[in-house]
Amino acid sequence: MSDPFKYLHDAMEEFSAERDWDQFHSPKNLAMALTVEAAELQECFQWLTEAQSIELDEKQLTAVRDEIADVQLYLVRLAGKLEIDIEAACRAKMEKNAEKYPADQVKGSAKKCTHYQD
Amino acid sequence: MSDPFKYLHDAMEEFSAERDWDQFHSPKNLAMALTVEAAELQECFQWLTEAQSIELDEKQLTAVRDEIADVQLYLVRLAGKLEIDIEAACRAKMEKNAEKYPADQVKGSAKKCTHYQD
Amino acid sequence: MSDPFKYLHDAMEEFSAERDWDQFHSPKNLAMALTVEAAELQECFQWLTEAQSIELDEKQLTAVRDEIADVQLYLVRLAGKLEIDIEAACRAKMEKNAEKYPADQVKGSAKKCTHYQD
Amino acid sequence: MSDPFKYLHDAMEEFSAERDWDQFHSPKNLAMALTVEAAELQECFQWLTEAQSIELDEKQLTAVRDEIADVQLYLVRLAGKLEIDIEAACRAKMEKNAEKYPADQVKGSAKKCTHYQD
Repeated sequence: MSDPFKYLHDAMEEFSAERDWDQFHSPKNLAMALTVEAAELQECFQWLTEAQSIELDEKQLTAVRDEIADVQLYLVRLAGKLEIDIEAACRAKMEKNAEKYPADQVKGSAKKCTHYQD
Repeated sequence: MSDPFKYLHDAMEEFSAERDWDQFHSPKNLAMALTVEAAELQECFQWLTEAQSIELDEKQLTAVRDEIADVQLYLVRLAGKLEIDIEAACRAKMEKNAEKYPADQVKGSAKKCTHYQD
Repeated sequence: MSDPFKYLHDAMEEFSAERDWDQFHSPKNLAMALTVEAAELQECFQWLTEAQSIELDEKQLTAVRDEIADVQLYLVRLAGKLEIDIEAACRAKMEKNAEKYPADQVKGSAKKCTHYQD
Repeated sequence: MSDPFKYLHDAMEEFSAERDWDQFHSPKNLAMALTVEAAELQECFQWLTEAQSIELDEKQLTAVRDEIADVQLYLVRLAGKLEIDIEAACRAKMEKNAEKYPADQVKGSAKKCTHYQD
């Protein structure tokens, strides 16, 4: 695990230990908390147009920054509980994605929703 | 930005450029995709007990590892579009959390749902 | 409970009993499943523009119809487990909303994200 | 459309018209808002055990009731925009589910996460 992930992992572990919160941090519960934080992040954008979403004011940016941190922190905590190396998982997934979506075949088309029936 | 975040950021940028997917990657859309991936991660745990969620078999772990990567990759992409430094955001948020939840006051109590009315 | 909600409630109860799925249907788990279905519904729209999202083709509509049903069915199931009358809850919430967002004061402004700091 | 769904549909339409909120209510945005409300509902359960989640106190029940209403109201609004009959969609989906999960074959086994690789 590279440095920043390790730093965040250890900081979260200490934070939880000091509060005796480990009892609540089953992977199931952490996955729930992660989705809740992702939804809070999404909420910041829900009534904005796509164009507005790239031009945030300082108040909006502060909220988004905090929610991005919350998602990252729960992700690190969940991965830690399952002894998953996030960085290695990302490298492996990017390789899978490169095979699944060959650049010359998908160029300019969005990935389709997995729920559309072909 | 420390190395692994920078590495993932640059790899995602190249991946998107090669597929001409930048046109879909407004912060609004990336926030939606992030929540969808978080929900897919959560789905792996939804019918498991908390105890089962820490004892995953290899098939379950593979799925979880992939979904954790998807969440991380969209988070890096979203933060990149808004020029947010994830690591700095996490450090700042952990400081806020330490103030908001003083260890000696909250010890052993879960954070309450923000929707309960006091 | 008015007829369609009661019909759906009873049908779901029978469906679950026949499969011995009641053991998985704690409110916690049903709330997780509900969010997962909401995210699957959202996924159908994530790479579409707002304008495209109102002009779905038949394949997209079929997927959306199925996901809307999944959300509704889990919502009915969850409410049933907690003996909550959905229709009464909606009427009460609409009254609260009417007080919280007086038409003459909020006209034309979107509700702000609850995470922006005033 | 049976009565309660029609009642809620019409009430939401009037509520939005009075506030000039129709401009924000593209199906894409409504799907986002729906997921956010589902996540808020889920948040009420995230640190509870499954056993605790069926034994809510009055404060918790009030929060859950409100969030269930929010999910229902956005679902009705989204379905209305796409002219989808929720009740008909549910009946059709329950038929599909009955075929997909034959009672004698799946009895006692949870549906598997769609992300596990067989």
